[in-house]
Amino acid sequence: MNLKKVTAIIRCEVLENVEKKLQDIGVRGVSITKVKGYGEYANTYTDDWLVTHCRIEIFTEESKADVIAQAIMEIAHTGVTGDGMIAILPVEKLFRIRTKSDANTDEI
Amino acid sequence: MNLKKVTAIIRCEVLENVEKKLQDIGVRGVSITKVKGYGEYANTYTDDWLVTHCRIEIFTEESKADVIAQAIMEIAHTGVTGDGMIAILPVEKLFRIRTKSDANTDEI
Amino acid sequence: MNLKKVTAIIRCEVLENVEKKLQDIGVRGVSITKVKGYGEYANTYTDDWLVTHCRIEIFTEESKADVIAQAIMEIAHTGVTGDGMIAILPVEKLFRIRTKSDANTDEI
Repeated sequence: MNLKKVTAIIRCEVLENVEKKLQDIGVRGVSITKVKGYGEYANTYTDDWLVTHCRIEIFTEESKADVIAQAIMEIAHTGVTGDGMIAILPVEKLFRIRTKSDANTDEI
Repeated sequence: MNLKKVTAIIRCEVLENVEKKLQDIGVRGVSITKVKGYGEYANTYTDDWLVTHCRIEIFTEESKADVIAQAIMEIAHTGVTGDGMIAILPVEKLFRIRTKSDANTDEI
Repeated sequence: MNLKKVTAIIRCEVLENVEKKLQDIGVRGVSITKVKGYGEYANTYTDDWLVTHCRIEIFTEESKADVIAQAIMEIAHTGVTGDGMIAILPVEKLFRIRTKSDANTDEI
């Protein structure tokens, strides 16, 4: 089974709705961190050019990665600069610590 | 040389013991962040469904990645929901800033 | 197009200069988080062996990844332990939420 990591950087205002959507489509594990950053049109140096976004990270099987990305995009999209982005990275192995086993998709 | 990134999401209560174990087996560099998230059995919406875990990230050579994952699993395992998970991701290049060089395994 | 993720762990003291350099070379999006960790020569257990570093993450096209890594290295290098490291990871897909599109290099 091919595994993927989906990383989404979104507005924190939409985080709660994105989380609900993810649970609705069966995503059983997410990690959330706050990040500071600048996006596509940052080109001036001001004290507040660094804005805070929320980053969601999800490990999942390949067949679900695009579904998850689309679901996040649907909820997080406003059409205004600062909406953020989503990346899909390859994952070689995934272990679940509780069972000391390789994770399979049902367990993710 | 093939390089890997090991990412472990564990209970923060076991972080100190995991760090000691990692130093015992010769891991010379780790990065730690706190993450919020929900795990395998989260299926209700309560104010406190987001729990804090600690995330450890280690860059290492391929031959050591599994050893590190097993060592973390050994220490972090309690058998109870919320133990977390470990992922191994491919890394293409690694540079050490102090020496401005490609990192080799002895240097990682 | 091949996409990459550049992750740099650097001293927070050089963060501002690194950010300026990145904007100078046309990097349009970065994410910054603080991480705790220990580096290459940590081998004693003291209360303060965990130091705080700043982590920069950039999604970019393959042809720019090395340029970005070198630019960060140039600014962040002091030659003293604790300078940090830079890793380049493969990325399979990248979506921009604002446009609901696959990101191309001009848009990153």
